[in-house]
Amino acid sequence: GIERAPLLTRLRELGDTGRDSAGRLSRVAGSDADRAGRDLLCKWLSAAGLRIAIDKIGNIYGIWEPPGASGAPVMIGSHIDTVIDAGVYDGCYGVLAGLSVIEALQADGRRPSRPIVVAAFTNEEGVRFAPDMMGSLVAAGGLDLDAALRSQDAAGVTLGDALASIGYAGQEQPGFLTPHVYLELHVEQGPVLEASGLPIGAVENLQGISWQRIAITGMANHAGTTPMTMRRDAGIAAARVMAFVDQQARATSGGVATVGTLTLAPGAINVIPAEARFTVDMRNPDETLLKQQEDGLSAFLDGLRAEGFTITTESLARFQPVAFDPGIAAMVEAAAAARQLGCRRMTSGAGHDAQMMARIAPSAMIFVPSKGGISHNPMEFTAESDLIAGADILLDVVRRLGEC
Amino acid sequence: GIERAPLLTRLRELGDTGRDSAGRLSRVAGSDADRAGRDLLCKWLSAAGLRIAIDKIGNIYGIWEPPGASGAPVMIGSHIDTVIDAGVYDGCYGVLAGLSVIEALQADGRRPSRPIVVAAFTNEEGVRFAPDMMGSLVAAGGLDLDAALRSQDAAGVTLGDALASIGYAGQEQPGFLTPHVYLELHVEQGPVLEASGLPIGAVENLQGISWQRIAITGMANHAGTTPMTMRRDAGIAAARVMAFVDQQARATSGGVATVGTLTLAPGAINVIPAEARFTVDMRNPDETLLKQQEDGLSAFLDGLRAEGFTITTESLARFQPVAFDPGIAAMVEAAAAARQLGCRRMTSGAGHDAQMMARIAPSAMIFVPSKGGISHNPMEFTAESDLIAGADILLDVVRRLGEC
Ligand SMILES: NC(=O)NCCC(=O)O
Ligand SMILES: NC(=O)NCCC(=O)O
Repeated sequence: GIERAPLLTRLRELGDTGRDSAGRLSRVAGSDADRAGRDLLCKWLSAAGLRIAIDKIGNIYGIWEPPGASGAPVMIGSHIDTVIDAGVYDGCYGVLAGLSVIEALQADGRRPSRPIVVAAFTNEEGVRFAPDMMGSLVAAGGLDLDAALRSQDAAGVTLGDALASIGYAGQEQPGFLTPHVYLELHVEQGPVLEASGLPIGAVENLQGISWQRIAITGMANHAGTTPMTMRRDAGIAAARVMAFVDQQARATSGGVATVGTLTLAPGAINVIPAEARFTVDMRNPDETLLKQQEDGLSAFLDGLRAEGFTITTESLARFQPVAFDPGIAAMVEAAAAARQLGCRRMTSGAGHDAQMMARIAPSAMIFVPSKGGISHNPMEFTAESDLIAGADILLDVVRRLGEC
Repeated sequence: GIERAPLLTRLRELGDTGRDSAGRLSRVAGSDADRAGRDLLCKWLSAAGLRIAIDKIGNIYGIWEPPGASGAPVMIGSHIDTVIDAGVYDGCYGVLAGLSVIEALQADGRRPSRPIVVAAFTNEEGVRFAPDMMGSLVAAGGLDLDAALRSQDAAGVTLGDALASIGYAGQEQPGFLTPHVYLELHVEQGPVLEASGLPIGAVENLQGISWQRIAITGMANHAGTTPMTMRRDAGIAAARVMAFVDQQARATSGGVATVGTLTLAPGAINVIPAEARFTVDMRNPDETLLKQQEDGLSAFLDGLRAEGFTITTESLARFQPVAFDPGIAAMVEAAAAARQLGCRRMTSGAGHDAQMMARIAPSAMIFVPSKGGISHNPMEFTAESDLIAGADILLDVVRRLGEC
């Protein structure tokens, strides 16, 4: 089985890499903190005797090719980049559990029929560079490498330059390693498993994601002298869009919507905002309903245009809902039953690298509970027993898929 | 009369001081651009033979004490700090017209019975340091000097340090110069005069101003996995406050309300905002109605608190409506009539240094039209003929008050 101590210790150590003086963890893609996290991961992969390969989008692969293994690999992956002020489990758990699975197989003297690979994909979070799940998307052939490397952060730095500056612009062509199957173990990041009182989720699908950046231009004017009826206040227009997408998501079955970033310009207490720039994240497990949310937003923006606002929109990411491989999901359920761990089929609310890898290989995900459903927050927490249980299920499924 | 060319040329030259590479004018209080503007003004004051005095809050006084002048001075003032991405008239027009008035009196060989002083007050705009009208407020004894110097900008820099670093932390005790009367000529910054087709406004009062900073704390969580019913989204709460103060102002006679600044934290596309920080600027010419707007906001925030948000509020400025000296307003009307310039009594929507000086001396203001009512915007514009007409009326009133 999985050894507790190395997995838990590495999770803590990686989680302490990239904290600022106030103790906030931020290891966004291509940052110095990301470099430090990658260096640590590579050290551990090497220590386990894995061959390290890095591709041109910065994805890191630790490859175990024991004697007798051949053909396309069983790939276990996730990511180690984080959001701003993050928790320690999101992504890192799946990568480090993958390493622990290989170590467990090695310790048991197993001889898998296929290579086993643990992968850490670049920029899964999409906080600094859009879209999210970028490394796996490029590896799966869903996004052109050059377009991805040209993606800019808010300061105009490209991902290509950021990867070069941290020393992780690798040599391999993305897609050089096509998996036989792809597995991802992840904290749920939502409230479903905790509410059901079950330690294991067999993820059968993942909702569609629509990310947009919106800029509304109104007219700057004096906050004291301009009558309410003569204003074209871009901030109030943005507030109305925020209220609209929020209400619309509440009224749409399965829908969620979030405005996570917003800036007002010129940004002075006594100046009516001339411009509001913000992002909208809308999701739905049903493609038709997600399209309805997008159309509703678009009609609402047209209404604002008719009031005299100038509005531009830019799609930052658009992914349809994905169905995972039902056979592998059934193996997850069977492994949980064999270990007498409660398990349910479920939908992923978050985007994951598995969503991209599903384009090129049968893929599935395993979830473990997140306390209070909290994620993208330093309070993100999963109990140690659940972390180990999830890794054990991953080990069982890898053994079946790797025939060892 | 007033000489056209020097006034218009200086307005242009001062207006080109503090532009960035994109041509945007920003000369916020205590900045390097403010230093450059002050240096230029002092050069012009000296060239007119005025004695320059600077007080500890950085107010600049150009003092003309011709032979035979004695007693408390007639003071003409305004400010030369600007908002971000500003126009060129706001404040600068009043200061430079004051200088032109003194030059006109000198050129005519007038001998006023009292000194004539032109004043440029520090940080009228309040964009970087709150409250606004700070220099005149301190000079009028309405705010403790040390408290004002301790006021911090968003980066934690104090006004005291900023003034010292630009070399304008002066020697004089604020209030060392108490005027006999105070006059301020200003662009209206609103639409009233243009709509009335009149070149001159005799300002009889100025509306009350309430500035608050509000911080709403909700809870960060994952934008994809968190059901709408389980969110505590600080950004949506802020959007609701924005919509509320906007609607309330529309429903309150004479009321206006503006949210000019807003930031969300952590500020990532796929993270529900944990915190929203923003400012609210509410105004009304009627103190009772302004109080009602404040109470309405406060009750709305209590409603959000009941939903689980933590909210702090901080008053950044609170000024009651001010009535100006009716006698001087009548002199403005009489001077306009004598020159056959149309004139009306009116209310000021903007805050002005005259509002503070009214605490210690009979005060009044003269307005000239702003094209389209636009201000705090690079499109701010007043026709040259109106600029000269306003300065002529100022000259006439100064002659009556200075008995020359
Ligand atoms: N798992 C995860 O948090 N992925 C980031 C992409 C998303 O916003 O869903
Ligand atoms: N005149 C002017 O714009 N003053 C700034 C203070 C205010 O916001 O009214």
